[in-house]
Amino acid sequence: MGLKTPEQYVESLNDGRVTYWDGERIDDITKHPRFKVPIAITAKDYEYKDAELGALRSFRDETGASSHRIYQIPRSEADLAKRVELLQHTSIGTAVSGVFMALMSVKDQVAAANPQYGENIERMYRYCRDNDLRGAEVITDPKGDRKRRAHEQDDPDLYVRIVDRNKEGIVVRGAKLHITAASLVHELVVMPTKGMRQDETDYAVSFSVPVNTKGVSIINRSFAPAELNAFDYPASSHHSMPEGFVVFDDVFVPWDRVFLAGEVQLASKLAQSLGLWERTGGVIAAVEQSELFVGLAQLVTEMQGKENDAVAQASIAELITYAQMLQMSLDYACRHYETTPSGMVYPNTLAINAAKYYYAANYHQTVRYLHDLSGGLVMTLPLESDLRNPESGRYIRKYLHTKPTVEVETRMRVYNLIRDLTADAYGGWNFVVALQAGGGLSAQRFMMSRTYDIARAKERALKAAGVL
Amino acid sequence: MGLKTPEQYVESLNDGRVTYWDGERIDDITKHPRFKVPIAITAKDYEYKDAELGALRSFRDETGASSHRIYQIPRSEADLAKRVELLQHTSIGTAVSGVFMALMSVKDQVAAANPQYGENIERMYRYCRDNDLRGAEVITDPKGDRKRRAHEQDDPDLYVRIVDRNKEGIVVRGAKLHITAASLVHELVVMPTKGMRQDETDYAVSFSVPVNTKGVSIINRSFAPAELNAFDYPASSHHSMPEGFVVFDDVFVPWDRVFLAGEVQLASKLAQSLGLWERTGGVIAAVEQSELFVGLAQLVTEMQGKENDAVAQASIAELITYAQMLQMSLDYACRHYETTPSGMVYPNTLAINAAKYYYAANYHQTVRYLHDLSGGLVMTLPLESDLRNPESGRYIRKYLHTKPTVEVETRMRVYNLIRDLTADAYGGWNFVVALQAGGGLSAQRFMMSRTYDIARAKERALKAAGVL
Amino acid sequence: MGLKTPEQYVESLNDGRVTYWDGERIDDITKHPRFKVPIAITAKDYEYKDAELGALRSFRDETGASSHRIYQIPRSEADLAKRVELLQHTSIGTAVSGVFMALMSVKDQVAAANPQYGENIERMYRYCRDNDLRGAEVITDPKGDRKRRAHEQDDPDLYVRIVDRNKEGIVVRGAKLHITAASLVHELVVMPTKGMRQDETDYAVSFSVPVNTKGVSIINRSFAPAELNAFDYPASSHHSMPEGFVVFDDVFVPWDRVFLAGEVQLASKLAQSLGLWERTGGVIAAVEQSELFVGLAQLVTEMQGKENDAVAQASIAELITYAQMLQMSLDYACRHYETTPSGMVYPNTLAINAAKYYYAANYHQTVRYLHDLSGGLVMTLPLESDLRNPESGRYIRKYLHTKPTVEVETRMRVYNLIRDLTADAYGGWNFVVALQAGGGLSAQRFMMSRTYDIARAKERALKAAGVL
Amino acid sequence: MGLKTPEQYVESLNDGRVTYWDGERIDDITKHPRFKVPIAITAKDYEYKDAELGALRSFRDETGASSHRIYQIPRSEADLAKRVELLQHTSIGTAVSGVFMALMSVKDQVAAANPQYGENIERMYRYCRDNDLRGAEVITDPKGDRKRRAHEQDDPDLYVRIVDRNKEGIVVRGAKLHITAASLVHELVVMPTKGMRQDETDYAVSFSVPVNTKGVSIINRSFAPAELNAFDYPASSHHSMPEGFVVFDDVFVPWDRVFLAGEVQLASKLAQSLGLWERTGGVIAAVEQSELFVGLAQLVTEMQGKENDAVAQASIAELITYAQMLQMSLDYACRHYETTPSGMVYPNTLAINAAKYYYAANYHQTVRYLHDLSGGLVMTLPLESDLRNPESGRYIRKYLHTKPTVEVETRMRVYNLIRDLTADAYGGWNFVVALQAGGGLSAQRFMMSRTYDIARAKERALKAAGVL
Repeated sequence: MGLKTPEQYVESLNDGRVTYWDGERIDDITKHPRFKVPIAITAKDYEYKDAELGALRSFRDETGASSHRIYQIPRSEADLAKRVELLQHTSIGTAVSGVFMALMSVKDQVAAANPQYGENIERMYRYCRDNDLRGAEVITDPKGDRKRRAHEQDDPDLYVRIVDRNKEGIVVRGAKLHITAASLVHELVVMPTKGMRQDETDYAVSFSVPVNTKGVSIINRSFAPAELNAFDYPASSHHSMPEGFVVFDDVFVPWDRVFLAGEVQLASKLAQSLGLWERTGGVIAAVEQSELFVGLAQLVTEMQGKENDAVAQASIAELITYAQMLQMSLDYACRHYETTPSGMVYPNTLAINAAKYYYAANYHQTVRYLHDLSGGLVMTLPLESDLRNPESGRYIRKYLHTKPTVEVETRMRVYNLIRDLTADAYGGWNFVVALQAGGGLSAQRFMMSRTYDIARAKERALKAAGVL
Repeated sequence: MGLKTPEQYVESLNDGRVTYWDGERIDDITKHPRFKVPIAITAKDYEYKDAELGALRSFRDETGASSHRIYQIPRSEADLAKRVELLQHTSIGTAVSGVFMALMSVKDQVAAANPQYGENIERMYRYCRDNDLRGAEVITDPKGDRKRRAHEQDDPDLYVRIVDRNKEGIVVRGAKLHITAASLVHELVVMPTKGMRQDETDYAVSFSVPVNTKGVSIINRSFAPAELNAFDYPASSHHSMPEGFVVFDDVFVPWDRVFLAGEVQLASKLAQSLGLWERTGGVIAAVEQSELFVGLAQLVTEMQGKENDAVAQASIAELITYAQMLQMSLDYACRHYETTPSGMVYPNTLAINAAKYYYAANYHQTVRYLHDLSGGLVMTLPLESDLRNPESGRYIRKYLHTKPTVEVETRMRVYNLIRDLTADAYGGWNFVVALQAGGGLSAQRFMMSRTYDIARAKERALKAAGVL
Repeated sequence: MGLKTPEQYVESLNDGRVTYWDGERIDDITKHPRFKVPIAITAKDYEYKDAELGALRSFRDETGASSHRIYQIPRSEADLAKRVELLQHTSIGTAVSGVFMALMSVKDQVAAANPQYGENIERMYRYCRDNDLRGAEVITDPKGDRKRRAHEQDDPDLYVRIVDRNKEGIVVRGAKLHITAASLVHELVVMPTKGMRQDETDYAVSFSVPVNTKGVSIINRSFAPAELNAFDYPASSHHSMPEGFVVFDDVFVPWDRVFLAGEVQLASKLAQSLGLWERTGGVIAAVEQSELFVGLAQLVTEMQGKENDAVAQASIAELITYAQMLQMSLDYACRHYETTPSGMVYPNTLAINAAKYYYAANYHQTVRYLHDLSGGLVMTLPLESDLRNPESGRYIRKYLHTKPTVEVETRMRVYNLIRDLTADAYGGWNFVVALQAGGGLSAQRFMMSRTYDIARAKERALKAAGVL
Repeated sequence: MGLKTPEQYVESLNDGRVTYWDGERIDDITKHPRFKVPIAITAKDYEYKDAELGALRSFRDETGASSHRIYQIPRSEADLAKRVELLQHTSIGTAVSGVFMALMSVKDQVAAANPQYGENIERMYRYCRDNDLRGAEVITDPKGDRKRRAHEQDDPDLYVRIVDRNKEGIVVRGAKLHITAASLVHELVVMPTKGMRQDETDYAVSFSVPVNTKGVSIINRSFAPAELNAFDYPASSHHSMPEGFVVFDDVFVPWDRVFLAGEVQLASKLAQSLGLWERTGGVIAAVEQSELFVGLAQLVTEMQGKENDAVAQASIAELITYAQMLQMSLDYACRHYETTPSGMVYPNTLAINAAKYYYAANYHQTVRYLHDLSGGLVMTLPLESDLRNPESGRYIRKYLHTKPTVEVETRMRVYNLIRDLTADAYGGWNFVVALQAGGGLSAQRFMMSRTYDIARAKERALKAAGVL
């Protein structure tokens, strides 16, 4: 029990888990080059002695012990702000453990339906916290044919379902897609992907199992090759994290790890509670990313000597608008927080939904401004290796000079970062993630519309129309 | 001294002021049909006994007297919030007196250059407050050929300028455009339209004169005819306010009413201080208007039985995003207020600039959603008079029926409001005002870019690029 | 028989038709101020002696007689081009007679179902052509609750329907909305508003009746007041045309004027044939309007001396793109025309649908560029009457000067045209018409998607994916 | 002389050219894995016996010999259409030889300044054609600080310049960026990057030299690694083509290969002539790509069973609009071709410029629709190798099933193509190329504005305003 060291974390991953990547079954991921970067990134969040971030990473829990702050249940605006700060400095491999915040935020409602489930949530939360474990957000089912509901599919397993129940527990079968960091965590925390109807009881299921549970397999995928040069790939060389295609092949789950097993009325509650925290993470990342875009746009413009170009200034102003609107939304979401009956606070739902949608809907167009400012060199810049080769490097240094205040290497790094973030494999991933994380545009619009006070808006409109 | 009644306000306007409208020189605007609606609207803000709004309209000033709250200098976030609330319930004819907030916010800087000016600002502020007067924001010069500066124009009067100075005061000549409510206030508070250079001292001028000062003429214009039916024009029948083309034909201004007379270094300070409050007013209006759009969109959709139409829902979600982003920005601007050395608070400059730009840049596209939802009937709906005519009215009632819960008259009022707000004379005015108030898009982008912390964004980008 | 003079046209309108406007039943529209401008506009198209346009207005029909060219059935690309040219110089009051092109283009199919209907179409076409009459496009039903089909509405009359059939003909009841120029034509040519299902036979109805038929009433509406000054309203002073709310109160239609009476399978054919010609008219207008926007944008920019402003140039370039894309689409639609079995040619359906959608979807945003370039003066410009008043006029001339090459009156006319077209009552109408004519955005997308060769696109995609 | 075989082409590349890639100086590119795919792609265009494309690839030139059709000078609309068809089936490695079309289109003007240059153009064109060589479009200079002109840079070599002239020829120094296929062609055809002023005579230079000329070095870069799996990367596995950073280190060019050497008045002519053909190529690619997007969008939607989802349909309609507008523009550009004095025809300049700008400006937003339709699986789909692994493959096949008509492998290929084209390294390259090819948005707007008949638009606006 207690906090782990980075080394202990790495060691803990060699537990017999079944993972695949690029056609290979990998027996020990801690030794495999494919996992080197992702594990290193996630391990860093276990550096509790870090001078700069150590204090942020841990908190004193109600037992008096130190735990990773990802497990701190926010009870005030200040706690929420701290959580935002933490997430700005935490890898996604750790951040996904926020799935426990989602569970804890619905614990009261779940307990009302079945006290045992409420206790299970609490116990699993403490177990992971106290052992400094990590859990993945295991939510999206394959869904098959979208015109049909879960139980109407050609194959009844296209949504994760309970295939057997007995005194000891349940047996589940199915798969979950896009599970970020699934191979890098300790617990797979499974949530229903959406609301379920009365005749879909077998699909209203939520639970947590260790990654190395019998019957669990993970097929990995990442936008990034095994290793990337940090000069050429300043961002993706240390952001890469595999997504897992997680299979549950008749996996047994004991009752004390079950959070839902048939109570269809709660399925959408669980799904939405996770959605909120997922979108909150998205908005936090959006705030950082959009500020980065402004900085990159200004740098690339200055480096070319175009800082007085009115059209360039106009494009930068668009990037600023995007960054500032996002920043203000996040601020609002934290200040106007909401509270569960038991006193846990969470970000304002409408604010997060609106901010996330604004981010997603305008992401592509915003990147267009950055691409327009950057010019073609972003794509055709020679590699670091060519810079280091004295013959070709001499030419590169000579011809990429723009003015005395701009170092060619700095210029190359800035261009590389723009390409890496927005116009290469990681950039492509960013486009799709901006749009799809927390549901595609339709799902996001739906969540936003649900939370807006439309009755008040209608009343005001009727008054203005002279009716009321 | 002290608060005026609405009647006293109206009376006070018959003071010999020189106004023109539609080719006519109007000697007493209080008797003229053209001014009937605008004066009535503005007079309402003098109803201090009003059960609902009376308390909001006044405050106890530092002398212990009651004054109109438009003169309350905000000294805390709560004061700022109160001011926002006030502006949500105040006509533009009163709101323009906010020009004194602008002056007061730069008083310290102005006084540093010339203590007399600082005293003049303070005195004029108190004079207007204590006599319950109104002042107009007199700022935009005709500007002539934009390629040339003020003193390079064919006619040196294309920017308001000092043509003479003597012991008693200054003599000014020129014109100011788009002066909202110029004919409806007591004082014309003149501000420089922009920064001035060293060789433009005659153009760095600011002062206040009564509307009926010799040499002042106002040519009026409004989007609205003299009178409008409230059924057919639910909004513009009581929002119309003339803009004035204000001419200063060698107007004498005594020194004690002068706030700037040649100190070019202060010209842009004054211009910007007013700009901030103008844009704040714009954002407050935007918040209300955008919520109204949501309400109207939902109503018109429900009335047609299209509330389950996925594309209609998507359009409404866009309107919600717009409304919510604006609402969050205004909230942020007030919470993250800024403070002058002497303790006056004002909204966060960057927040207001970003919100105003977001509003302006997206206004047309947002209205497109509303127009798409509303259908052609918004334009072709018969008039109230045809509804009241029993023969035609019978047909209208029969054929505009959609379902039992929708009253035809209510439906008509809702459609009329949409048309009036977005697709008629007032609607056209709204399009241009959304864009141009507080400067066009370029000016707004410029203000936003100036206030964004671009150095921090660059530093973050360099760090992310591996440079710092 | 034969061509009418403008005077004969005007006279012909005093035929006892039942029209309402602004609460008044108007017995003779040719004497009423409300109709003065619309009738004058429409009468102009009867000026066959006009030096410039006379030749364009008429053609020699197959009987050797001269008829208005609106009745010329295009049989070649050149004919189509001529028709486009005609429509560029024809008022909407005449252009709506294009409804006969729609009928003629489906005549073959209609005749296949019932030869009598085919003959009726042909006969009515010749009758109107040979007597130089005008017909209105009477299509949009009130539709009531959109969730329900025609026969499921609370009131079965919410779609025009056959209430009785006998040996002599049919009796119809219902209303049609947004009928442009309904009161200004001779024939009301009624078309089904959309496809009908098997159980909606009474709603699959098409016919033509004279405007003064017993039981027909028209309630009029226009964006424009009775008369407008051509200086202040350069466009709407001569473009105003009332839309009619047309009621059929048990109107008898003899069989020889019936084009459809229950053949549900043909209802959508008729609706779509008219839709194509309506949208074609929309695209022709769009081409002209968008070029006008470019010209106005350039003029207003030059008049302010901002022609070298890079941001202004960028905005003008957006307007050029819009104009040029529309122009190219119309060209394509005519060159890639389609042909009916009997040799009538009509514009390429997909091209027209795509162009119309592009126009509609981007109209608001395009106007934003124009509004941004124009500045606030577009809204606050004094009226002509104030310009003509020597006292105020002197000031206006002095202060609206920008440079020697720009006449103040010209400047005012240009600003007035921008306001009139895009930011006043007519401007509002233009926004809604751009979007809604030919169906709102959803309907337009639907039409476009239906006509695109999606199978080919899929095949190409599969090939590119390595599947085929 | 005469047509080469693919093998001869490959052989011809081993000529001692100096190329670098990834830090390595590559002596024989025909043996290096990095160049394997690009060379194979380009070699395919030498397959003149190909059953399907052979006839398209060659034409009979005026000498009666067979030459690659890329060298056919279009003299009619049909020729132009043929060229478009050719370019739809030709790799970029061959297509860049279109640089000779640019030179030939300005030959008459160049000859007027210096007959020798005209002869050189003609001779080099024939030489390359008759020997079946390929030439690269060598145009973009590094440009250094954009605030300064060529001769004002810190290093005078930041634009390619003449450092010496003598009887035999000129000596040039400098570099050119983004030179597609530079290492894969035989001739580097150098053009000035933009207009030059009177004091920049050394920078107004154009010529052609063999790639293996002494002093020429090329540093290569591509979005793609050496080899890619065609299942996972259906597009980029056979589209990859390196861009070259081409250095001229005191390269001697004999006079008979010089097309311009100091005639500053012609510099922009040459630059623009190439720009037109570059943009034409861009529009041709855009037409194909946009149709592909429609096909992919429809496939991915059907595969998920969402083809009746109204919002999905609306998104597909946006993709159709984009594809159709582009297709119509290209058609217009060919039909409304322009002609040089000597009878060479080329696409309509305005049409190409407008289409290219429309493509570029809307590319990002259009991809957003595709990304929204595709869902997250586009990013997280397992690799082919995992599909082929029996253990993981079994799960993939089971859980990616949607309905009987959709094969899982087909589904995977379609998703992979979407990712590859729009959300991976090649996708990133596509974003930037769509925007930057033919100049960024500003340059494209500038070209479009120059070619639009703004005088006519102004005249029409003045007429409509009542002035003319």
